Amino acid sequence: MYKVKIFFVLLGFLTLIHSETVLAQQATWIWYPGDYDIWLGNIVQNRRTERGTFFPPFWKMDSHYVLVEFSKTFELASSENISIRVEGQYNVKLDGRMLLGSPEKLVIPAGKHTLKIKVYNQAGVPAIFVLGETVHSDNSWQVTYEDKEWIDESGKASETSTGTVYLNAVSWNFNSPDTPPSQFKLSTRPMPVVSEEIQDKGILYDFGKETFGFVKFHSVKGKGKLHIYYGESAEEALTVMHSETMDHLYVDNTVAGDVTVPGSKAFRYVYVEILDRLSYDSVSMLYEYLPLEYKGGFRCNDEQINKIWDVSAYTLHLTSREFFLDGIKRDRWMWSGDAYQSYLMSYYLFFDTPLVRRTTFALRGKDPVTSHINTIMDYTFYWFMGIYDYYQYTGDQQFIGQLYPRMKSLMDFCLSRRNSEGLMQGLAGDWIFIDWADFNMSKAGEVSFEQLLFCRSLETMALCAGIMKDTKNEKVYTQLAAELKTKLFSLFWSESHNAFIHNRENGIAGTQVTPYTNMFAILFNYLDDEKTKAVKENVLLNPDALKITTPYMRFYELEALCALGEQNYVLKEIRDYWGGMLDLGATSFWEKYNPQEKYPDLLAMYGRPFGKSLCHAWGASPIYLLGKYYLGIKPAGPGYESFIAEPCLGGLQWMEGNVPTPGGKIHLYCSEKEIRIKSDSGTGTLRFKSLSKPVCKTATIIKTGDNQYEIIISGGREVTVQYKSIK
Amino acid sequence: MYKVKIFFVLLGFLTLIHSETVLAQQATWIWYPGDYDIWLGNIVQNRRTERGTFFPPFWKMDSHYVLVEFSKTFELASSENISIRVEGQYNVKLDGRMLLGSPEKLVIPAGKHTLKIKVYNQAGVPAIFVLGETVHSDNSWQVTYEDKEWIDESGKASETSTGTVYLNAVSWNFNSPDTPPSQFKLSTRPMPVVSEEIQDKGILYDFGKETFGFVKFHSVKGKGKLHIYYGESAEEALTVMHSETMDHLYVDNTVAGDVTVPGSKAFRYVYVEILDRLSYDSVSMLYEYLPLEYKGGFRCNDEQINKIWDVSAYTLHLTSREFFLDGIKRDRWMWSGDAYQSYLMSYYLFFDTPLVRRTTFALRGKDPVTSHINTIMDYTFYWFMGIYDYYQYTGDQQFIGQLYPRMKSLMDFCLSRRNSEGLMQGLAGDWIFIDWADFNMSKAGEVSFEQLLFCRSLETMALCAGIMKDTKNEKVYTQLAAELKTKLFSLFWSESHNAFIHNRENGIAGTQVTPYTNMFAILFNYLDDEKTKAVKENVLLNPDALKITTPYMRFYELEALCALGEQNYVLKEIRDYWGGMLDLGATSFWEKYNPQEKYPDLLAMYGRPFGKSLCHAWGASPIYLLGKYYLGIKPAGPGYESFIAEPCLGGLQWMEGNVPTPGGKIHLYCSEKEIRIKSDSGTGTLRFKSLSKPVCKTATIIKTGDNQYEIIISGGREVTVQYKSIK
Repeated sequence: MYKVKIFFVLLGFLTLIHSETVLAQQATWIWYPGDYDIWLGNIVQNRRTERGTFFPPFWKMDSHYVLVEFSKTFELASSENISIRVEGQYNVKLDGRMLLGSPEKLVIPAGKHTLKIKVYNQAGVPAIFVLGETVHSDNSWQVTYEDKEWIDESGKASETSTGTVYLNAVSWNFNSPDTPPSQFKLSTRPMPVVSEEIQDKGILYDFGKETFGFVKFHSVKGKGKLHIYYGESAEEALTVMHSETMDHLYVDNTVAGDVTVPGSKAFRYVYVEILDRLSYDSVSMLYEYLPLEYKGGFRCNDEQINKIWDVSAYTLHLTSREFFLDGIKRDRWMWSGDAYQSYLMSYYLFFDTPLVRRTTFALRGKDPVTSHINTIMDYTFYWFMGIYDYYQYTGDQQFIGQLYPRMKSLMDFCLSRRNSEGLMQGLAGDWIFIDWADFNMSKAGEVSFEQLLFCRSLETMALCAGIMKDTKNEKVYTQLAAELKTKLFSLFWSESHNAFIHNRENGIAGTQVTPYTNMFAILFNYLDDEKTKAVKENVLLNPDALKITTPYMRFYELEALCALGEQNYVLKEIRDYWGGMLDLGATSFWEKYNPQEKYPDLLAMYGRPFGKSLCHAWGASPIYLLGKYYLGIKPAGPGYESFIAEPCLGGLQWMEGNVPTPGGKIHLYCSEKEIRIKSDSGTGTLRFKSLSKPVCKTATIIKTGDNQYEIIISGGREVTVQYKSIK
Repeated sequence: MYKVKIFFVLLGFLTLIHSETVLAQQATWIWYPGDYDIWLGNIVQNRRTERGTFFPPFWKMDSHYVLVEFSKTFELASSENISIRVEGQYNVKLDGRMLLGSPEKLVIPAGKHTLKIKVYNQAGVPAIFVLGETVHSDNSWQVTYEDKEWIDESGKASETSTGTVYLNAVSWNFNSPDTPPSQFKLSTRPMPVVSEEIQDKGILYDFGKETFGFVKFHSVKGKGKLHIYYGESAEEALTVMHSETMDHLYVDNTVAGDVTVPGSKAFRYVYVEILDRLSYDSVSMLYEYLPLEYKGGFRCNDEQINKIWDVSAYTLHLTSREFFLDGIKRDRWMWSGDAYQSYLMSYYLFFDTPLVRRTTFALRGKDPVTSHINTIMDYTFYWFMGIYDYYQYTGDQQFIGQLYPRMKSLMDFCLSRRNSEGLMQGLAGDWIFIDWADFNMSKAGEVSFEQLLFCRSLETMALCAGIMKDTKNEKVYTQLAAELKTKLFSLFWSESHNAFIHNRENGIAGTQVTPYTNMFAILFNYLDDEKTKAVKENVLLNPDALKITTPYMRFYELEALCALGEQNYVLKEIRDYWGGMLDLGATSFWEKYNPQEKYPDLLAMYGRPFGKSLCHAWGASPIYLLGKYYLGIKPAGPGYESFIAEPCLGGLQWMEGNVPTPGGKIHLYCSEKEIRIKSDSGTGTLRFKSLSKPVCKTATIIKTGDNQYEIIISGGREVTVQYKSIK
């Protein structure tokens, strides 16, 4: 296992504790779908501060259901002792009979029984943990927020089987009665200062790289305030007047003692000023992180690319917390467009599906829908698209089932906001984001990019309606998507530009061509060969085209180029762009990087000198690009039951890596002469080009075209192919 | 003020502390409309226990908005110091600039300013109290749960004036910074035991009448459990095995001390068993109540009627708490049909409009609507009708404005559930309640009563749409109501029965005639003279018609008869029915009373020997009937800006009383020879019949028909008329 070893050295901070799937028969804390995600999301997203002041989100925050009934019908061969733990006030009904008080222990006789536990919890999430020999709380329990069980005058209970909507309960990994969900905390680990520097009024501490956690002062003595200024750069920490985050910690220690700052922060540098009669021995920190297993990996002969992969992985880990956050210094919020990219990257690294589900539910919140997700129109669409991908990568239909009602109501919201042309146009309160661009970009009228994402969202709805066997709506969504696609081409494809134009105002097509619609149309496979070629030449590879300056949109730009087979070009771009950040000293990747900008101006954003986030999830896309388009591994059927491996060296001499799947992982090695591949599960197609006739001793090689070959991979056996790569 | 004196003696328990309206310039705690009602409603409704076990509602319980922005724009002549108190975590923005930390004091310079306070509170309701010389938190502040104020890359804030929905904040009477809404508790007052009786294993205490509160043991010493069984009757307390509520209180007092049971209960009798080594000196209780002013009153020459009025008032007070509850022993929940009657009674007694508003908001909860209110179809319609009445009695348009969005979405829910005929029919999960009846009543198919209430609800929507100047929907609702009314007559009026039939199944009209639709049609003024006469003879006064056995429906039955001028008959019915309960020892009025049932069987309900509630809000209707149809006072325009006084002795020799109005009260005295009336505000029409030519020295008498006269009342002057009543 070269991967684990190397990574431990390289990435230092990481651990391997993780348990994703809960066995059906293992007792675990359970709750109503979405409840915990919404509740924990409120806590997490309300931790943002700006220069010491509480800074909450500007969109609606929902709450969990405060009253939930959990139920399970089972048959016991012999009587069984069960114990019950509950977060909230509760009662227990066995076979319709309410038991005295709130029992913590129960003996259930042999036979068929229905157990119901009804829980009220206003401040936290109603959750239960039931443990018997065979009876366990798990995802097979049913939950409802309105059981509608009323008693008529004669004492007869109403029939709850009709009219009451049940869902399956959900869980995470709270598998002990003593670790209830409300007590969840990220893990911490002590980390030392790497260097320190005395300043005029204090000391600047350097932790060596971007990190996240709680600063700790050792042996503090005296009375007064510790003034702590955080910086992702030394300049930020030292500016005092402009550092984005800070703490002013009052201490009154007559006897020396350690003091830890109560709130965790993102920083590399910490500048501490002491204006009062205080002293301390030293400073360290508690690194705060979500324990995640590095299931995916990538190594190649190019050490710069390896470094870029490592820093990307670290960036993604720092932003993969209770939820996928955008940037750890400033927002600490969930943003749907940012999270969408984190999901995709994560499928090639952690494959932590509970984290994807938590973020998806928390972003969605509850009905009614009163605005776009994060108030941003495009972010609503990314939310749908994230579910499309989730299903491709995981094959998890249960999650689709839990989410489908909230998908429908969000789509109803979108459909109700179409204009008379049936197109999406910004209404009062809608934010059309698209990208932070350095050129003038109109958000007015009907923006082609929004229609494109809307179309993909409708396709996602059709897919999920099919999974849910909701054939009526499957038809409706399919039809709506097809109609919208037709309009997209008739209204926005410009024959004169040979590309999609950016927008249309008052029925008049604009003349600006931006990369967004064009590159996504390639990713969605919406273009015929001729149009694909046109977009490639006129937009993607055109040196005069408008330039993207965020890693966010570079993600899709480079992905589109990879999809067109431009891996060699893209590798060079990765070296230049992400390598450019590394050359400037980046230890995690940034929110925005324009190679034209100079230090320290490049630290500024949002009109503030240190407004830019230097650890932003969307900066980590090389993980995704290298896994999907160089190792070339992606699902062909839901959850990798079938998959494609189409390795492409893109100018590298060799590369090797793992891609995680629901059933384990796929390992691939590829040099100019040899390909080795092994998958723990599923059936894959290895696709490659070879100048020579390839040789494989353990599998059949199928020739599919000039120099093109395929091999079927299955059953956990490693397949080795000798071939000659085309550069 | 005879009223206050007499009532203090008669009703004992009551106090007069109350302040309904908050002056615009008085600082008070404010919050988002509905939030506090929903939050407090959850606490109150989850206090139900059944034989010691927690017994929560079976419908969806919502939550407050956890993140709310409060804002106010004002102009200061000179700089001002203001102080801020908040329930929750918060930040403060002055003129768009976020202030450091969470300031509790602030100096605002002279000039025009906008102050924004954004509050996060998961467990409780986000609420603020702002106090300056001129700047005060009050209902003029704006609130929103999604301010949509985002910052673009350049640092520019979005324009929140478009796309953000603001409402006016609401308040109750938390007018001091030190009485935040989360700390609200009902008042308590010590009350003694009236008598006690030694039993086999314990002592039975009698508090002399139905009451509510916390049982208190004095000088308890020793270790063990106090077993406390509550009873609305002595039988219930003594049965031990069947008392509906009980407490088992563990005590470990080495030194004697007082012990108060933590949860309040409803009871008249308390039976205490001690099986352990415990002793105590005596028992008392803390009566728990909402301080309410008895603004309305009624006295007449008939002492039985006076007693009925007093016990009704006490019944209503016991059930008028944080909210209007149904019964205080068992449910302690809000039920829309029950609350609807409490509202009406309350307009003739407490006129406590915040209590009406709290109950209305708490019953409604939040969107999305997932079932009928309390799961009961008729209860959804009563909710609408309650708003109709609220507007008539109070003239309060602001409340309509706050509620209108939730009225529309609830009506959308109803409209979406109509069958192909456009009629309401029970769907899965719908409870068709109507009444607890002792005859067989079908709930199948299309029930005429539900269509009738639906029609009235649509009329309410039309009224409120008009108030909201939502002319488009005013038209829609008016049209829908008219269409439904037409169908009601064409499908349910039976020429052969000369009455409305009860229901229709699979397109076939039933043959049963029940009182409900018929009597409500009279109350809603839907019938012409001929049909009115038919209903009166064939249903209301027909001794062979199906009998109502709940005070709940007797309310409307007797009201319909009063509306038809049958006050003499109704007074006899009141004496028989409510007098019948008094004769059986009632100290508050009951959930159900069938004069045929014998003691102690009449205590049973819901298949349980003491299931019946002996203090039920809907038992208190004589307050309403005597105020509205004997004193004869009711609003003619919204909020009593104009009113009618049409006294009717109904066989009494004299009566006297007050009816509260938003502007004070209307006092009326009426004997067979003299009428005296005085109103604090509004313009009224005194309508009366006289066999002789009436004489009034201070106002003009208008003759309107044979023996019929009117006098216009205004300006706070008392008008005295000499006349000769028609018996």
